[in-house]
Amino acid sequence: MHQFSQAIWTDVERIRAQAPLIHNITNFVVMNNTANALLAIGASPAMVHAPEEVEDFVTISSALVVNIGTLDATFVAGMTLAMRRAKHLNKPIVFDPVGVGATAYRNQVSQDLLTLATPSVIRGNASEIMALAGLNTQTKGVDSLFGSEAAIDAARRLSSLWNCVVVISGANDYIVQDDRTAIVANGHPLMTKVTGMGCTATAIIGAFSAVNTDYFQAATHAMSIMGIAGELAAEKRTAPGSLQVNFLDALYDLSEATITDRLQLTHA
Amino acid sequence: MHQFSQAIWTDVERIRAQAPLIHNITNFVVMNNTANALLAIGASPAMVHAPEEVEDFVTISSALVVNIGTLDATFVAGMTLAMRRAKHLNKPIVFDPVGVGATAYRNQVSQDLLTLATPSVIRGNASEIMALAGLNTQTKGVDSLFGSEAAIDAARRLSSLWNCVVVISGANDYIVQDDRTAIVANGHPLMTKVTGMGCTATAIIGAFSAVNTDYFQAATHAMSIMGIAGELAAEKRTAPGSLQVNFLDALYDLSEATITDRLQLTHA
Amino acid sequence: MHQFSQAIWTDVERIRAQAPLIHNITNFVVMNNTANALLAIGASPAMVHAPEEVEDFVTISSALVVNIGTLDATFVAGMTLAMRRAKHLNKPIVFDPVGVGATAYRNQVSQDLLTLATPSVIRGNASEIMALAGLNTQTKGVDSLFGSEAAIDAARRLSSLWNCVVVISGANDYIVQDDRTAIVANGHPLMTKVTGMGCTATAIIGAFSAVNTDYFQAATHAMSIMGIAGELAAEKRTAPGSLQVNFLDALYDLSEATITDRLQLTHA
Repeated sequence: MHQFSQAIWTDVERIRAQAPLIHNITNFVVMNNTANALLAIGASPAMVHAPEEVEDFVTISSALVVNIGTLDATFVAGMTLAMRRAKHLNKPIVFDPVGVGATAYRNQVSQDLLTLATPSVIRGNASEIMALAGLNTQTKGVDSLFGSEAAIDAARRLSSLWNCVVVISGANDYIVQDDRTAIVANGHPLMTKVTGMGCTATAIIGAFSAVNTDYFQAATHAMSIMGIAGELAAEKRTAPGSLQVNFLDALYDLSEATITDRLQLTHA
Repeated sequence: MHQFSQAIWTDVERIRAQAPLIHNITNFVVMNNTANALLAIGASPAMVHAPEEVEDFVTISSALVVNIGTLDATFVAGMTLAMRRAKHLNKPIVFDPVGVGATAYRNQVSQDLLTLATPSVIRGNASEIMALAGLNTQTKGVDSLFGSEAAIDAARRLSSLWNCVVVISGANDYIVQDDRTAIVANGHPLMTKVTGMGCTATAIIGAFSAVNTDYFQAATHAMSIMGIAGELAAEKRTAPGSLQVNFLDALYDLSEATITDRLQLTHA
Repeated sequence: MHQFSQAIWTDVERIRAQAPLIHNITNFVVMNNTANALLAIGASPAMVHAPEEVEDFVTISSALVVNIGTLDATFVAGMTLAMRRAKHLNKPIVFDPVGVGATAYRNQVSQDLLTLATPSVIRGNASEIMALAGLNTQTKGVDSLFGSEAAIDAARRLSSLWNCVVVISGANDYIVQDDRTAIVANGHPLMTKVTGMGCTATAIIGAFSAVNTDYFQAATHAMSIMGIAGELAAEKRTAPGSLQVNFLDALYDLSEATITDRLQLTHA
């Protein structure tokens, strides 16, 4: 495990040293949390969605994070322009299809954005990954009806179709690309009782993608430290209000020793 | 008191067992808090406002919560379509007229929405309930200038006019419908120093309405656990930053014994 | 120092006694935090941005806070109408040019708003103040590339050009107007690891401007208590999740004795 924790730590140190600017077009529910998580890990977050300026902002950013949680026409227009520009500039794009499968609009926007500019990484829960791959039409809002294992085939299909990394988050997180699969067993069930933990994972993948061009590694490292910080937080107090606070503290306090002690990462 | 606390606990257990999907069209200030409160009590929250998809989303949801706090044309369009659909599908609608009385726009939108689709429950502070009933034109933004007692006649008038449950929140919460009145004396003054506690109450009423079709009971139960969780939080630390965190922890940790010990509910 | 801490305390007591209504048109990231900070200091916050109602809302408010963090066309339309009305009614306007210099849109909107209705106070970090004064085109999103000292000339130029108070926040905060300069050395580096601390400072300046028409004093007092509350919070736990919570508690718990003990304010 030591080689993996060392590689994760190298990325964390790069983020802290470079403080990469992460451009987020994300939902209203989590903007504060994801900005704070990006600051806690050492990145420099910005939330910018206006069509009038997203192209300029992508140009000065190191990664683009697009999350459709509370999408509407204005935000979709911003996402469209930002993703096209990021693709043109060859900057990493991380895409979070929150609630895809729940409505026709969400499905259409997701397909349009994927077609326009393939992301470097797609992260969702099992229901979302299955819906995005066209393998499931059952959803329950933004929560998953399935364990993450159920979506592995869907993830592999999506990865192959769009030539990108796909992350299924859940009790175990699966990171899939071509014939590579990583499984992160870190995390705590209480994380599902705090809104926006998935969206935070997506944003943190953005930070790692800004310093590691192997996006499979970047996504694996991000999911590892998300899970470890979640465990540390839940051990301090097993209640959701406290978890949200202690999670940010844990992200900020991360050390290489803690990662080495805790990491539960396997490659299949 | 035991029969009441038992009835409340039955609803809490239903929420935890069913995790009903609560569709919120609410304001930017409180989206994170109300989503977390809904998760803490055991419901499954989603924030969805785009006119392109609200009708689809209402269809898969168990209750609709509409809050006009930071309304604008896009959100009003979403509220209109969502409420009409919820009415058509006979799903509970909980309406929070934040700041009504402060501007002509807020008054007009509130009347339009009420006329379009009568809510199952309306919750506001005394100023808002009086303004909505046409009995008061004095307001101070989103805070009440009056104690909750002052609005009982207004609540009764509104309840009779729209044939719905009306909740006035304050030091005492009044829940009114026809000749039924419940009074919840739980709560703590510090709750007025945390933004969005009223909006959170509205969202929690949504969760109870999803599992109890007697909306008078649902609203009464929701206000009771709001007040109890607020007391528990304020006893841990009497300061507003901590209250916000400890309130979510208390909601999550609620037990039947705590409710029985604490409940201050009377029926008049 | 005692005379200064007394003057600060007088303003705090006025805010607590009057609970002035502060009208905020601000960004999605910080709405919850700035509302809670305004409540913690004793003011009555409201977030209202719709063009249909901002003029009515300015009319009943004691100060207007405009922050361009997540601006878009709808919000800019609201800002324009609100600032014009506030100017007409001679109410204090506090302006926060978040991220100005990062995009042409942000620059244009800032210049348009300044030309339309000069604020009473402008607050930004060094990069923003330099960009607004036309002295810098280098930015990194919303973070400053410079220490606050680097922007003193820019602040003086802006103050003279627009005849207003200019605040540069940083390790030292500079408050500038004509030949007056105040320097606040309070604060803690961890405050830069919590999103929206600058935006919160801007909102708190709004509260002080509502009770003290000497806006140079109002801004100086606001920056002093921001720094002191930040220190108190960081001493409880040096991690960003806790800081956000403890900061609100510290604002709420402020006493004249604490301000007198802690204040590091000089006039140059």
